[in-house]
Formats: sequence, structure tokens, C-alpha cells
Amino acid sequence: MKTFIFQKKPFIEQALLLERLIPNRNPNPLLTYLGLVPGKGALTFFGSNGEVDLEVRLPVEGAEEGPRVLVPAAPFFGLLKGLPGEEVHLRLDGPSLELASGRFRTRLGLAGAEDYPQLVFLSPAGESANHPGEGAFPEEVTLEAEDLLLLLTRVRYATSNDEYRGVFRGVLLELRPKGIRAVATDGYRLALFERDEPRGEGLKAIIPGRTVDEMVRLLRGKRGPVTLAFGQGRVGLALRDGEAQIRLAALLMEGEFPDYERVIPKDFVLQATFEAEAMREALKRLMVLADKEAHRVDLLLQGERAVLSAEGAYGRGEEEIPIEAQGKPLSLSYNAKHLLEGLSPIEGRARLGLSGPTSPSLLLAEEERGYQAVVVPLRV
Amino acid sequence: MKTFIFQKKPFIEQALLLERLIPNRNPNPLLTYLGLVPGKGALTFFGSNGEVDLEVRLPVEGAEEGPRVLVPAAPFFGLLKGLPGEEVHLRLDGPSLELASGRFRTRLGLAGAEDYPQLVFLSPAGESANHPGEGAFPEEVTLEAEDLLLLLTRVRYATSNDEYRGVFRGVLLELRPKGIRAVATDGYRLALFERDEPRGEGLKAIIPGRTVDEMVRLLRGKRGPVTLAFGQGRVGLALRDGEAQIRLAALLMEGEFPDYERVIPKDFVLQATFEAEAMREALKRLMVLADKEAHRVDLLLQGERAVLSAEGAYGRGEEEIPIEAQGKPLSLSYNAKHLLEGLSPIEGRARLGLSGPTSPSLLLAEEERGYQAVVVPLRV
Repeated sequence: MKTFIFQKKPFIEQALLLERLIPNRNPNPLLTYLGLVPGKGALTFFGSNGEVDLEVRLPVEGAEEGPRVLVPAAPFFGLLKGLPGEEVHLRLDGPSLELASGRFRTRLGLAGAEDYPQLVFLSPAGESANHPGEGAFPEEVTLEAEDLLLLLTRVRYATSNDEYRGVFRGVLLELRPKGIRAVATDGYRLALFERDEPRGEGLKAIIPGRTVDEMVRLLRGKRGPVTLAFGQGRVGLALRDGEAQIRLAALLMEGEFPDYERVIPKDFVLQATFEAEAMREALKRLMVLADKEAHRVDLLLQGERAVLSAEGAYGRGEEEIPIEAQGKPLSLSYNAKHLLEGLSPIEGRARLGLSGPTSPSLLLAEEERGYQAVVVPLRV
Repeated sequence: MKTFIFQKKPFIEQALLLERLIPNRNPNPLLTYLGLVPGKGALTFFGSNGEVDLEVRLPVEGAEEGPRVLVPAAPFFGLLKGLPGEEVHLRLDGPSLELASGRFRTRLGLAGAEDYPQLVFLSPAGESANHPGEGAFPEEVTLEAEDLLLLLTRVRYATSNDEYRGVFRGVLLELRPKGIRAVATDGYRLALFERDEPRGEGLKAIIPGRTVDEMVRLLRGKRGPVTLAFGQGRVGLALRDGEAQIRLAALLMEGEFPDYERVIPKDFVLQATFEAEAMREALKRLMVLADKEAHRVDLLLQGERAVLSAEGAYGRGEEEIPIEAQGKPLSLSYNAKHLLEGLSPIEGRARLGLSGPTSPSLLLAEEERGYQAVVVPLRV
């Protein structure tokens, strides 16, 4: 019978994390509900899309422990966003939830939470987790939110979107003696990004691409340390945002990640540097003309210029960009989309190392250490 | 063999009008092309989606008459938007079109224009139209762009989207001795907007909803006089935007528009005024809870307040808004979506006149003369 009082704006900001995650339809209709648990001094909201579980815990003065309940997520969020007042009064009253703000009040029916899956999150020391997460994630590292965000976003593009490609659909995280590394590949190109910290003794985990996307959403704009943890074939992430405590948990992928180090070329017949943005712009223009399957674009690299061209059903286009090249002139073809995505994280100048017209090429950023992309040329 | 030189920005702005119109796919593949006609001192671009025809004429120094040609629209616009330079060089050279800008150049294949429909636009005196529009639109009026925009946008929402509703899918324009009037109705609600100018002797024309949308796109942000013309079952619109001359033509709808004046109520048992925005906000919140078919919301109007409520599968909501009412207390139900849309053009205070719990209600804007909306209450 307790009434919880929130300031609307920060409350909505956190609640929207769950709105994005909770599905509107699902074979398991319970997943379309938002969960609530009143706890000591806090109210916890939780939800899941069946792949990724998420929990947001907000401090509320005077809150006391109560049973977990489920509220239909779509109308709850729809109403929440439109509330007229600055304050939100939320009251759990037996089989219903009352929401009042300004002159508006509503009563939503609740569903019992008995059949909702028990979500397991990592539980930092000294915090009551509301869920039995104790010891579920024994391998734990702490890193800066911005660093984890970079690790995930720099390589995410290279994963496969194909439903049947197994581990190619995930991002490999490796804790190595030299530092942490993220790797993704779809077999045609590869992206790798590494940081000196944190270090580890060979922990490897493959996080599904869609889980990576949810982690990226949580991490965007955040600062300060976050906890990343692994255990029982699962990954956990915990962070704070102002007064809110946010936790995510998801299954890792099973399987062996390919031996990616052997495809990274070490010797080059030609190395060229150029403005990444100029190359990206030229590739975007030429992609309009290239065939829609292989997105083939031809490059001739020679001395101080690269000539890019593409030809398709509509016609032909050509563009020259200035480069600084060392080595033999070389002519080769790429999937423009792969080259463009490999260049996407690079600001300023890029370095392209060619090992031959049909063997893998290496892309580096001149100004940001840690990023490497491998793109395999098209066989002509 | 002539090269036309354009400044990229204004050229693109006008070209994009055609990009939005020209379909990517069409049973008639010729409609996926953009047409070009070099004329004396100008280059004319044209296109059609089969319902609405559009022409944009841009002055180009030294241009001379040439045959009309077709270029595949999607790659042309795709390339145009990504061009690197400030200037665009466009060259028609036999079977191909060359586009060059900065370090980029491309050559697109042209298609012959023999089989493309001959588009007919209104041709203002003293201008060469490139198309045989002479005398095709004998009934012509001039009005301000902003006034025509208001006439169309104030009533557009009330048309039917149902494929089989005939004239209910269009907006009626009437040139009357008292002024010009626009009317739309789907049989459940009606919107009417009128201006004192221009006047006429009973010309009536029903413009299809989708054509209205294209006219609205052309008129947005424009100032100054525009020409609206009718003839041979067609509507024509001509306007200027900077140096560009823009013309639209489309078929009118056939059929008799219903006798709408008889459904506008004249006598009221209760009249109430209120802030339109407060009512809209309350309706939006309650619509979240209302059933998804009839969007039923109940109103109780009495003295100084209106109590709105809705109930559906998820629960019940209620909100009170302050009103000033004269007449007997009345309780009735509306489709919240219809009431919301009827209120949508109203800024400041609205006036609602009720003729009874099941007979049509009238909505007016207190501050903008000319707008009337009729909403029929739901039978409970």
C-alpha cells in the first residue's frame, strides 16, 4: 500500500532503457511485461527480451520490501511518457498499480510474477541484488565505461548478421597479459581493437552481436568505472548512472572463435596513407554505381594518387584521391562496403598495407593505437 | 554537347522535390526515370508517380533547346547528393549524361523519352512551357502560398484513407461568392476551412488526398502568390521558389461530394470553451488505455470542469480539465482519435458545441476564424 514518489524526468530516462528492451510481442507473453520489486530504500524495475536481461534500481526514500509484480510494459511506458506533472506517484495496491501525476490518474492491472523467469545479475559487494546473483559471475574486471564502449563499437560492424554463422555473429573479448582485446569477423573482413588495461590470463568470451548492441546503448554517454563479469556461460555488466544502478546479463555464445591472428598480414608490397574521410566519401559515391551484390570498386594505387572507379548497370564513375604510397604500383578490387566499414572508426589519416592483389589488406588509424582492420580484396 | 553548370545547393534543393515524388519501383518502369529537357536559357526536370506530375525549371545561362531525355532517377539523385564540389557540371552527350564535381566524375546511361507520357502543366503567359499546356487549365485563381497551405492542411486529416471510399478520399475545394473553402469528411467527422479570398461562382473540385500531400510539400515554407488552375478534370499548381519555377498537375476525383452543410449543427444544448492543448494532452494519455478500435473516451461536461475517462484491457484512467460551460450538464463518448484530430489545428482556446449525446458536435477555434470541425459522438 506504499506510494513511491519520483521526479518524472530522471525516472523516465532510466525507465526508457527497459522500454527499448522489452518486446511488444513475444512467443512468451510474460516477456512483454515490466517487472517491479519494492526493496529496502529502492524500487527495482526489470525486463528481458529473452536474450538480454536488464535491471534498473532507483533509490526511493522509505521504500520497503514487497513481492515482485508485473505490469503490461507498453501501456505503462506510454502513460509514463505523457504524464502531465513533474512528480510521479506510483502506488502498488494488491492486484493493481496506480500512477498519478498532475490531474491525471490511472489504475493498471498487474499480473502475477510467479511464472516470470528468475533473472540473475551480478551483485556487487554490499548491495542487495533482489535476485540471487551471488557468485554467479566469478570472473570480474573493472574498466572505464568509455573504454568498454570503444572496444565494442570499434569492432561490432565486422560481425556477421547471418542467422546461421554461429560465433561469427559475436564479438570475442579476450583478457590477455598485455591487455583487453575485442575481435569480430565474418570471414571476409576482421576488426580488432585493444587496450592496455585491464589485463588477464587468457579469459575468452564471445558476446552475441545483439547483446553487444544493448551494452553499447547502456554505455553511451556514461563515465566512470563499470564492472564486466563472466560465469556459467554468461556475461554480466553493472554500472551506475547518477543514483540509478543498472545491471545487464546475457548468455555468451558457445563455440571456438577462429584463429584470427594468422589472417592479419605482416608483410606488404605497398603501403599508403590518406585522409580516411576523403576515401570514405569517394567510396560512398562510387557505391551508388557499383553492383548491389559485391559492391565492387577498383583501386589503382600509385605514387601520389589513388584512382577509384566503379561500373554497374547505370553507368560508370571515377574519382581520384591524393595518397602517399611506398612500394610497387598495385591495382585491386574491394567490396566497397567492407572497405568503408573498415575505415569507419578512423579519424584523420588511415594507413593501408597491401600484401598483394588477392591477399588480405590491413587498415590502421595513424592517430589511434589499438585499431586494426583486415579486408580481403575481391578476386577479379 | 552543352555543359550546364549549377551551384550544388540550390540545384539539389529543387531536385529533391522530384526525388520524393519519383517511385523506386512502378508497374511502368519509365516512371522510375527523371526527365530532362534543355530549353532556351533553362533546364527543365520532370517526373511523375502516375498520379501527380511535377516539373522544375531552373535558369541556366546559355542553355539551348534539345530533345527530352530520361535518366535513372535513383542513382542520379544518390550521386547528386554526395557530390564533393560546390559546382555541378552536367553534360548531355548523346546516349549518356555526364556529371562532374570536384575530383569525381560519372557517366550515366540515358533512356529514350519517346514512350514517356506527355505531361501537361499550366503555362503562365509569357513563359515557354516545354509541354503543350496552352489552354489546358482554363479556370485559374491566384492566392497566397500560405493561404493555400492552410486551406489544405487544416482539413486534410478528415479524409478517409480507405481505398474504396471514393470522394471521401479527397479534399473538396469550392470557389464561392464569399470566398474559397476546403472541406473533407470520412462520414464520421468533417473539417471545413474558409478564406475570404479568392472568390468565385461555384467552381467545385475534389483533389485526391495524396495529391493534396504533394501540394502541401511544395507549399511548405513558400511565400508569395501561387496559381491554382482547373480544367479537363485536372488540377494545376504553379509557383516560384527563388529562380526555380515549379509546376504540378494531377487528376481531380470524379463524383458528387456529399451535402456536408446539413451535418453542421446550429443549435446547442451545451457550449464549452477550454485550452485546446490541455484537452489534446489528456486525450493522448487516455488513448493509451482506450480500446484500439473505437478509441472510446467518455466525457462529462459540467459547469467548470470536464472529466475525461477511458477504460480498456489494461486498466482505467481519468483526468479533469478546467472548462467554461453554458447549458445543461452532458455526458457523452467520442472516438478520442477523431476529437484529437479535430482539435489539432486549434491554437489557444477551443469552443465545443454539443447538440446532444448522440448528435454531431461542433469544434471551433476561438482565435482563428474560418475553421470548423464536426465530430459525431459514439453511440454507447
